[in-house]
Amino acid sequence: MFIKNCWYVAGWASEVGADDFIARTFIGVPVVMWRDSGGRPVAFEDRCCHRGAPLSMGRREGDFLRCMYHGLKFDRDGACVEIPAQDRIPDSVRVNTFPIVERHKWLWIWMGEADKADPALIPDTPWLSSPDWRHLEGYTHYDTNYLLIADNLLDLAHLPYVHPNTLGGPAAYAESPAQIEALDNGVRVTRWAMNIDAPPFVQKVKHYDGKVDRWNKYDFVLPGVFLMDSGMAPTGTGAAEGKRDNAAEFRGCQALTPETENSTHYFFCHPHNFAIDQPEVTASIHQSVVVAFEEDRRMITAQSRSLDLRPDFNMIPIRADRALGLFRSLVKKTVDGETVAISAAPRKNIAMTEAL
Amino acid sequence: MFIKNCWYVAGWASEVGADDFIARTFIGVPVVMWRDSGGRPVAFEDRCCHRGAPLSMGRREGDFLRCMYHGLKFDRDGACVEIPAQDRIPDSVRVNTFPIVERHKWLWIWMGEADKADPALIPDTPWLSSPDWRHLEGYTHYDTNYLLIADNLLDLAHLPYVHPNTLGGPAAYAESPAQIEALDNGVRVTRWAMNIDAPPFVQKVKHYDGKVDRWNKYDFVLPGVFLMDSGMAPTGTGAAEGKRDNAAEFRGCQALTPETENSTHYFFCHPHNFAIDQPEVTASIHQSVVVAFEEDRRMITAQSRSLDLRPDFNMIPIRADRALGLFRSLVKKTVDGETVAISAAPRKNIAMTEAL
Amino acid sequence: MFIKNCWYVAGWASEVGADDFIARTFIGVPVVMWRDSGGRPVAFEDRCCHRGAPLSMGRREGDFLRCMYHGLKFDRDGACVEIPAQDRIPDSVRVNTFPIVERHKWLWIWMGEADKADPALIPDTPWLSSPDWRHLEGYTHYDTNYLLIADNLLDLAHLPYVHPNTLGGPAAYAESPAQIEALDNGVRVTRWAMNIDAPPFVQKVKHYDGKVDRWNKYDFVLPGVFLMDSGMAPTGTGAAEGKRDNAAEFRGCQALTPETENSTHYFFCHPHNFAIDQPEVTASIHQSVVVAFEEDRRMITAQSRSLDLRPDFNMIPIRADRALGLFRSLVKKTVDGETVAISAAPRKNIAMTEAL
Repeated sequence: MFIKNCWYVAGWASEVGADDFIARTFIGVPVVMWRDSGGRPVAFEDRCCHRGAPLSMGRREGDFLRCMYHGLKFDRDGACVEIPAQDRIPDSVRVNTFPIVERHKWLWIWMGEADKADPALIPDTPWLSSPDWRHLEGYTHYDTNYLLIADNLLDLAHLPYVHPNTLGGPAAYAESPAQIEALDNGVRVTRWAMNIDAPPFVQKVKHYDGKVDRWNKYDFVLPGVFLMDSGMAPTGTGAAEGKRDNAAEFRGCQALTPETENSTHYFFCHPHNFAIDQPEVTASIHQSVVVAFEEDRRMITAQSRSLDLRPDFNMIPIRADRALGLFRSLVKKTVDGETVAISAAPRKNIAMTEAL
Repeated sequence: MFIKNCWYVAGWASEVGADDFIARTFIGVPVVMWRDSGGRPVAFEDRCCHRGAPLSMGRREGDFLRCMYHGLKFDRDGACVEIPAQDRIPDSVRVNTFPIVERHKWLWIWMGEADKADPALIPDTPWLSSPDWRHLEGYTHYDTNYLLIADNLLDLAHLPYVHPNTLGGPAAYAESPAQIEALDNGVRVTRWAMNIDAPPFVQKVKHYDGKVDRWNKYDFVLPGVFLMDSGMAPTGTGAAEGKRDNAAEFRGCQALTPETENSTHYFFCHPHNFAIDQPEVTASIHQSVVVAFEEDRRMITAQSRSLDLRPDFNMIPIRADRALGLFRSLVKKTVDGETVAISAAPRKNIAMTEAL
Repeated sequence: MFIKNCWYVAGWASEVGADDFIARTFIGVPVVMWRDSGGRPVAFEDRCCHRGAPLSMGRREGDFLRCMYHGLKFDRDGACVEIPAQDRIPDSVRVNTFPIVERHKWLWIWMGEADKADPALIPDTPWLSSPDWRHLEGYTHYDTNYLLIADNLLDLAHLPYVHPNTLGGPAAYAESPAQIEALDNGVRVTRWAMNIDAPPFVQKVKHYDGKVDRWNKYDFVLPGVFLMDSGMAPTGTGAAEGKRDNAAEFRGCQALTPETENSTHYFFCHPHNFAIDQPEVTASIHQSVVVAFEEDRRMITAQSRSLDLRPDFNMIPIRADRALGLFRSLVKKTVDGETVAISAAPRKNIAMTEAL
């Protein structure tokens, strides 16, 4: 089951060019994203209301989309405006649309009740469009449920084991205690590892003579957005007291968007605020993250297959699981709440294109 | 659910050579087709009655087929005539057979009650073996239910949208009203598009100076056979009144045979009666049809996937859907009628090879 | 359903090197096999008790295995001895283990109740490690239930039909009567074919001027182990009376180990006791068997697909099916007996590594 009344990252804004139709499935619903003549994003259910043909195989005609099976034409609000060989067009001939908003290089989509789609609820990611930060745009696809990936992000103690040559560093990192706080819409995790070696991905782009103090402080919020202040500075320079001279700082932005119960879109980037005039530094950091996320994907995909083989398997919790336990409870509570609300409400179509 | 008491096209006669075993599944039942020593086609269930091994992995021995797992030998009526190391052969040791008839280059098979298999019920396709017509033999395979393909054939208004560069022509074609007649065993559709451009596939093989009057008149009959008189002639030469001087005439013959609930065999050809001494004309017409049918297949396969994703999707009918609505009703009524009859009748094996 | 309280062949001992983790599934349970620092085999369920990650993606640290997702470390009995950032380790943190024994080049695993795992129950295969016999190690994988392969091995009358160019020989072989005896734990089959041609695979490695008397005498015992004394000698030299001068003798050893309900591991070899100083003879015999087993696999896989398509198919038994009928009854009786015993007993974890 998925949360519906929330903003999901639907893609990088750069993925949907002026004449593109991008077909992508969110929480089990196929969607086609395109832009009107003014460049504003539009999201339709990717299924013509007539015979179910994919609208992503259609043709853009100005602010309209024409289905290329039998020629029905729709405006950006989903209303049909033309049926070949038929004069009268009933109001019922319309396709479902979803609110979609472009914000700081990401497209955000609302799959639930359109009248609740308040753009003020979109998590803030100013670093993606700030001139003081640099990043490359990342995407990967998982053939697993999104919660297994959320688990992974909520316990960074896996870093030394899964990522010894990229994000990881020494086992001492996993031994450092993490501080866990429950938020209204997620979990905040703070971990300081003092006086350790810098991880390999930083050693490639920044020279530290000795040990560093390393912090990872992140909010993981519904439906599955990871926003992290992380970095490191030479040990003894007071990073833990807020001094960040000679620090290497990052703002990890990651978003899990369920595709189906068994697959997930994963959008990510890792902005940094040093050496921003050196593209090779940005490229090196991005590449380290890409390699590390492949390490995660390999492990989590194998874990998922293992769990599928034994539905009666009971995980045995350890202390490091506290954050992911909190988040899983929050997801369950939210889904249950929506299920109650939806079963009480009359069913209706979603016909609003954009909540902005 | 499938109609059982009807003739399905099982293949092109040319596919089953003297020593061939052709394994093909019809309405969920695997069948092996072969020829006896006199060249007469034989159809067995492709499953030895002993341990279920495919008989298509067997060996022809004169008028007999031997299973090559444990050596049982069967005559053309399905009766076992030899069991290694065993003298007595019980009557129960026999394989199911199906009536099969070769007619005008097509093999027709009857999957239902053998005693109802009247060859007089086979739809007539004389153009396939007439010296006055030319065609090439076509086949394609769909990973969809056959009814989605029937829908497509029953509304040729899709031509300008799906086939703009092959069979299609201008949008005006779709705007021309189709006349729909219910037949006892199908639907008749007649459409005249007056004073329009000839479609691309005809422009390649026949020169017309100006506009043409184009007709498509076809019967689509149970279980899924499409027989079309189509063509075009210069506008103003009286084609609509029956004059076909300087016409380009075709007799489209197409047959949908369900393989399973989710896959379909599609046999087709497009005989023409002009330039029959020019093989390059026949090849060009055939190639245009092949390309066009790939366009259909791409669209219908995508439509099928889209429908599978949302079982609760309700198609919204438009005026152009009338013919396909009639046909779907007829299929349903026929299947329901057979289901009632079958549940009332005692179960028996089908043991007759050929109804001729 | 599978028999649990029995020894299954888990692999060739040579497959698990000093630092290897071999992941293989037996009766639906994923297992990782490895060796401790003394070379003794260890078998764990291939699933960390914490979050289900495969332990075969872990790291051997001396006599310990560390899960490389979150760093938990286990001893060879499955007990957790280290959890990062956690002092107390509850007794419940342990992984399932299975008794595993190395015997005559094969690894044998016990998937049922560990306290019943008596190594004395392991079928004896001395030829695999005897200096008087030679073989090469064989393995193949089936995408079918193991019982269809057992059927095949229990009726060698299929040899002339499936293997005419390898193990088979003339149809007369199939006509020779087989003598069937029920054993407590299986079936014994004895077949003598007198005065026939030697089969192709022997003709390649041993010259016989005339006809031979050929015997195949084998026990097929639970759970699916085939142990055969087979061979041939010149007709008239008294082989049937026990004289084996100038005989070509073999000891076929084959083991079917179910992977899942729909797939099977097949370990095999075909030791011979003549020309043991000629590796090319061993290679030729092995290669003939490999080709023949591919012939079986092709037939049985096709048979399995055929049976899957028609769940209501009733096989019609013939006289040659007696041995396989006996074995199938024995399997059913054994599984039913275990099911009754298991449902009566309290559930417990299997924690013993080795029964030796």
